[in-house]
Amino acid sequence: MAIKLYGATGSTASLRVRACLAEKDLDYEFVSVDMSNKEHKSPQFLSRNPFGQVPAFEDGDLKLFESRAITQYLAHTYADKGNDLIVKDPKKMAVVGVWIEVESQKFEPAGSKLAWELAIKPIFGMTTDDTVVEENEKKLEEVLDVYESRLSESKYLGGDSFTLADLHHLPVLKYLMGTKAKRLFDARPHVSVWAAEIQSRPAWVKAITA
Amino acid sequence: MAIKLYGATGSTASLRVRACLAEKDLDYEFVSVDMSNKEHKSPQFLSRNPFGQVPAFEDGDLKLFESRAITQYLAHTYADKGNDLIVKDPKKMAVVGVWIEVESQKFEPAGSKLAWELAIKPIFGMTTDDTVVEENEKKLEEVLDVYESRLSESKYLGGDSFTLADLHHLPVLKYLMGTKAKRLFDARPHVSVWAAEIQSRPAWVKAITA
Repeated sequence: MAIKLYGATGSTASLRVRACLAEKDLDYEFVSVDMSNKEHKSPQFLSRNPFGQVPAFEDGDLKLFESRAITQYLAHTYADKGNDLIVKDPKKMAVVGVWIEVESQKFEPAGSKLAWELAIKPIFGMTTDDTVVEENEKKLEEVLDVYESRLSESKYLGGDSFTLADLHHLPVLKYLMGTKAKRLFDARPHVSVWAAEIQSRPAWVKAITA
Repeated sequence: MAIKLYGATGSTASLRVRACLAEKDLDYEFVSVDMSNKEHKSPQFLSRNPFGQVPAFEDGDLKLFESRAITQYLAHTYADKGNDLIVKDPKKMAVVGVWIEVESQKFEPAGSKLAWELAIKPIFGMTTDDTVVEENEKKLEEVLDVYESRLSESKYLGGDSFTLADLHHLPVLKYLMGTKAKRLFDARPHVSVWAAEIQSRPAWVKAITA
């Protein structure tokens, strides 16, 4: 099998790539990295990702890391497999690119901090920091206000079709939906429909149950 | 003139796009946004960038925001103008994509906080927070250690040629070079050569003196 994904169950960045692999209907080997034993800081893993973080990725002799770089590679290289995650028209793709950046620069920083405080810390018996929650809920609300407006004009963030711009949200969204932060999505009708729709995609369901 | 950039002098994100426009040797109109009068929060500007931040960008009827989405658009659309900022081979471009993400996810968060504390706050008579500086210098050092290793193997972050992966660093680098954080670059021989070389590019010199 040519494609290998070195990741960890529960890692949002690993899940981002699994979502993409499922959409592109690609077979791959999932290699579980034992983070509890610091395998991600071993010399062998550091040669795959020098930052010592999951995921790392291989496609034949090509080695990549950074989840969003891997999804970009998959979407472009396997354009004719599975579901399209990019668009052909360069100007429309430039707009998709804007919303890919918005996820990375605006949604992720607030969303991942909330996922950590509200969903992951409790699993490990750690105490949620309410100040961090309040601060990041405010930031996330500002982002979701922009999304509500955008999604009243187009079905998906990047335009009329589901693209990487939507897909990249799924892992953090998954965590937040099980927390009180869900109300921030529910309160915005277009955001709420969008969130439900992208989470019900068969490829995503496959990715999280694989 | 078809291309318009709505930005502010001193904004790192605006400078990132100006650097790219200079490399691609593209003519454009720079529209100064008066942030001291909150022009970036006006309804007119919010229609260009719903987050109320500079820059915003126009190329004919195409409207974009988010600096890294704009540079991607310029590098691909004007591939035959000025200097190449992407590479044609898809696997090599995938590797460039990794380092574009590294800048965005790793370098920028630490680097921009240091630029704010050490370079920008003093300009406005604000007090530098030494705890934030210490924390982010540590984070930046971890990033620069990876860069030092990477740049001992290839001249540029993305490979043998200067690409967006290098260019995206320039604005924050410019601020940091005037602060004590410069020592973190100077202490790493390959990083130091790289930083000096990319800052001496004629297009960058043109962008910061325009």
